[in-house]
Amino acid sequence: MSCVFCAIVAGDAPAVRIYEDDEYLAFLDIRPFTRGHTLVVPRRHTVDLTDTPAATLAGMLAVGQRIARAARASGLHADGNNLAINDGRAAFQSVFHIHLHVVPRRSGDKLSFAKGMVLRRDPDRGRTGELLRAALADCDTPRPD
Amino acid sequence: MSCVFCAIVAGDAPAVRIYEDDEYLAFLDIRPFTRGHTLVVPRRHTVDLTDTPAATLAGMLAVGQRIARAARASGLHADGNNLAINDGRAAFQSVFHIHLHVVPRRSGDKLSFAKGMVLRRDPDRGRTGELLRAALADCDTPRPD
Ligand SMILES: [Zn+2]
Ligand SMILES: [Zn+2]
Repeated sequence: MSCVFCAIVAGDAPAVRIYEDDEYLAFLDIRPFTRGHTLVVPRRHTVDLTDTPAATLAGMLAVGQRIARAARASGLHADGNNLAINDGRAAFQSVFHIHLHVVPRRSGDKLSFAKGMVLRRDPDRGRTGELLRAALADCDTPRPD
Repeated sequence: MSCVFCAIVAGDAPAVRIYEDDEYLAFLDIRPFTRGHTLVVPRRHTVDLTDTPAATLAGMLAVGQRIARAARASGLHADGNNLAINDGRAAFQSVFHIHLHVVPRRSGDKLSFAKGMVLRRDPDRGRTGELLRAALADCDTPRPD
């Protein structure tokens, strides 16, 4: 087993899990751009956009959308999100198991992709995970707007 | 009509079109990060991840995947691609009609998101469009690998 994301899926490597179902797993990035930076991966290993079925990408993005909505509703108080797929080493892909980045953003936050992909330490990853999971559960409950 | 992407969809504003079908349109970004930087938009106006149906996002990403594959096969000789959705002003969204960025990348290219979202002038946008459209048509033709 040389793929770290397959190891996380298998439960052989630790991760702060945000969401999981039969096909997908979402967990906090260990090198977050912002608090709550989450990766969504299909459980089944594929590499990039050249070998991943469109239907798999569709489901991955649907999970990402739910997390993005949850981030806005959560105690992280996101005002928006960057969602990104890095397809290939030339595009900064570093783990070769397809994944979607969900990067919660706040108005006026310090993160600027123009200024750098600065890694920031999350002082309490466990709490961050709780906030996202709670909002996700809440967002997924149908209710009148 | 205050939405520039709706105007492009309607044919009331110019764009170098890369791909279109009944539901989606793809065209070159007028402020490209790299040569071939393309935007995929649903024809039907929605704003961001809070109001766009998951099925619409799925189709948008499927078009983006095809363009990403085409960019690798094309005369642009991409080695990879960054795909991104900026959800909300806090996440750098500047046109409030949902869209997917497809940014072709080459190994060793000058673009570094770490160094800046530098805008680069494409000296021949028409030719860039031709290269992508040709590769897209070719990629979509089933053939033995
Ligand atoms: Zn894997
Ligand atoms: Zn519009």
